Amino acid sequence: MKSRAAVALEAGKPLELVEIDVEGPKAGEVLVKMAATSVCHTDAYTLSGADPEGNFPAVLGHEGAGVVQEIGEGVTSLKPGDHVIPLYTAECGQCKFCLSGKTNLCGSVRATQGKGVMPDGTSRFSLDGKMLHHYMGTSTFSEYTVLPEVSLAVVSKEAPMDKICLLGCGVTTGIGAVLNTAKVEPGATIAVFGLGAIGLAVIQGAAMAKASKIIAIDVNPDKFELAKQFGATDFVNPKDYSDPIQQVIVDMTDGGVDYSFECIGNVNVMRSALECCHKGWGESIIIGVAGAGEEISTRPFQLVTGRVWKGSAFGGVKGRTELPGYVERYMNGELNIDDFITHDMPFEKINEAFDLLHAGKSIRTVLHY
Amino acid sequence: MKSRAAVALEAGKPLELVEIDVEGPKAGEVLVKMAATSVCHTDAYTLSGADPEGNFPAVLGHEGAGVVQEIGEGVTSLKPGDHVIPLYTAECGQCKFCLSGKTNLCGSVRATQGKGVMPDGTSRFSLDGKMLHHYMGTSTFSEYTVLPEVSLAVVSKEAPMDKICLLGCGVTTGIGAVLNTAKVEPGATIAVFGLGAIGLAVIQGAAMAKASKIIAIDVNPDKFELAKQFGATDFVNPKDYSDPIQQVIVDMTDGGVDYSFECIGNVNVMRSALECCHKGWGESIIIGVAGAGEEISTRPFQLVTGRVWKGSAFGGVKGRTELPGYVERYMNGELNIDDFITHDMPFEKINEAFDLLHAGKSIRTVLHY
Repeated sequence: MKSRAAVALEAGKPLELVEIDVEGPKAGEVLVKMAATSVCHTDAYTLSGADPEGNFPAVLGHEGAGVVQEIGEGVTSLKPGDHVIPLYTAECGQCKFCLSGKTNLCGSVRATQGKGVMPDGTSRFSLDGKMLHHYMGTSTFSEYTVLPEVSLAVVSKEAPMDKICLLGCGVTTGIGAVLNTAKVEPGATIAVFGLGAIGLAVIQGAAMAKASKIIAIDVNPDKFELAKQFGATDFVNPKDYSDPIQQVIVDMTDGGVDYSFECIGNVNVMRSALECCHKGWGESIIIGVAGAGEEISTRPFQLVTGRVWKGSAFGGVKGRTELPGYVERYMNGELNIDDFITHDMPFEKINEAFDLLHAGKSIRTVLHY
Repeated sequence: MKSRAAVALEAGKPLELVEIDVEGPKAGEVLVKMAATSVCHTDAYTLSGADPEGNFPAVLGHEGAGVVQEIGEGVTSLKPGDHVIPLYTAECGQCKFCLSGKTNLCGSVRATQGKGVMPDGTSRFSLDGKMLHHYMGTSTFSEYTVLPEVSLAVVSKEAPMDKICLLGCGVTTGIGAVLNTAKVEPGATIAVFGLGAIGLAVIQGAAMAKASKIIAIDVNPDKFELAKQFGATDFVNPKDYSDPIQQVIVDMTDGGVDYSFECIGNVNVMRSALECCHKGWGESIIIGVAGAGEEISTRPFQLVTGRVWKGSAFGGVKGRTELPGYVERYMNGELNIDDFITHDMPFEKINEAFDLLHAGKSIRTVLHY
């Protein structure tokens, strides 16, 4: 079948709006018609060419929501008409990782997903007869896309897809990092480095967890208003201080915060985030994705004196099990997604959405098919 | 009063066996007559001059056991005749750290302890009228020593002091890192880097925790026999492999261990210890003390994909609360201390004990006053 798509033909170029060919789902696969997608920094990172694992040409996109059109042989857990959120972190329920009870990093489709193909090693996308790669197992920048069954969470049909599409990455990642990875307790003190969608979602998660002090940190003070709306209590622009930012935070909090979150992907900030934690128990969670080959460092004394360094991918959330509940919380008004959406556009304006993201002018732009 | 002591007059020189002057205990202090002490790598590190916080001249020593002789004003929790183990990690029960329920790093005497003086800022030791520094709040290399009340654990009088002195550091640190810091669960897989006293104690702790696989790693294969005795199931000499040691361990364990412990103080080994942990949940605990200014590094992806980097000081053990129980476990035969003691000597031979430690020929030498 034919499908509208925005294709990354090569690194560093804008996406090409074209009509691609999409093959139907094979065994264990599902054809989904996307209703909405948004653009995340990870898409921009791969498109830039800096991602050493980026494959071109490819159909990017990993934050979306849509409706199941057709299922392949053996697919039992969903059916045409179901509303779904694509998952770049699958959940098979049967691998060593899923069965461990300790992680959401399912291993079932990881190897092929990283190579930009379906689990059978082939692609369902082509343009003028030339194969296009899949991306993160989701490829939400094509109106019709094919995913493994294990990479789809079935959610309520009542929920507006142009809102809950954000649960496919940023919002869930930030809130999950607070609730699942850090397990922030009421009264805790928090520092959040970087006030993009993930940082704002961390702030919302910390407010949900009843943190007593939520310090929002960004070199762009324009972000503070929205951070406040999501629940931040204190605002720090590192440019306003001559001391290292970790010292500023330690001084503000009588010894450091209970939990810190790095939501940028800057290895120097990751160090600051660790070192602003309280001796004896402070935990720092890395969420941001660093550039290829970059390394984090610190003195081991930081850890020996009780700080803990962790990371979080998709907020530790098991998508198929937990996303339906996130959608319910949105519908009940417990979860704010709407305020992340600074722009709405037709799908055809997707390159403008990238421009807004790069310029720091948007938190999330939702693209409507 | 006069006291036999081995004094570190200057860095890099052997200890001097001399008679020093010891003042009686002031308010909140206790005079202890040591019965036995042992020598740990930390004493050797400070004596070498490499410790940037080392103060000279000083009375070193921090693994010991003795009997209370005299108490200062206001001391209520112990009395003359009590058997005690000195604690370089105090436990006041009242500071922010003690009350947190999250750490054993009591803050009550930390600042003055680091400067080599008692909490009032002065020393109780002198030699020919010249002040000698205290060390780690313990100074067990003097037959008579003065400590803060909060730096002493009262233990059973039935226990042999020339054995339980090892609970003052190495044995407790290793076992506590397993039981308190890592909280190893039955069936877990473990890698232990470095088979000195602490590494062997980690192995014992892992066996107590019913770990299923305990990999002992050292470049000196002479250590493997004792490691086996304490419960290690697998033995790896990194020199036997051309691959990086983390890869060797990952290959041996179908993806990595559940917990690893660095018991050397080498920042490169600390990285290996982290990276040999299983994706999704592996935790690495740093116990060894690195050289001044040295840093640990890794790619943040190691943490984002679920590994956790932690450290442990005195095994996360609250000394006054928990050491009496460790002594009971030794008396019941649940805890092996005897096999750590490879040498027994009179106190006067203390410099030989240092030589044996440097040569890798001893695990612990117990010195008898």
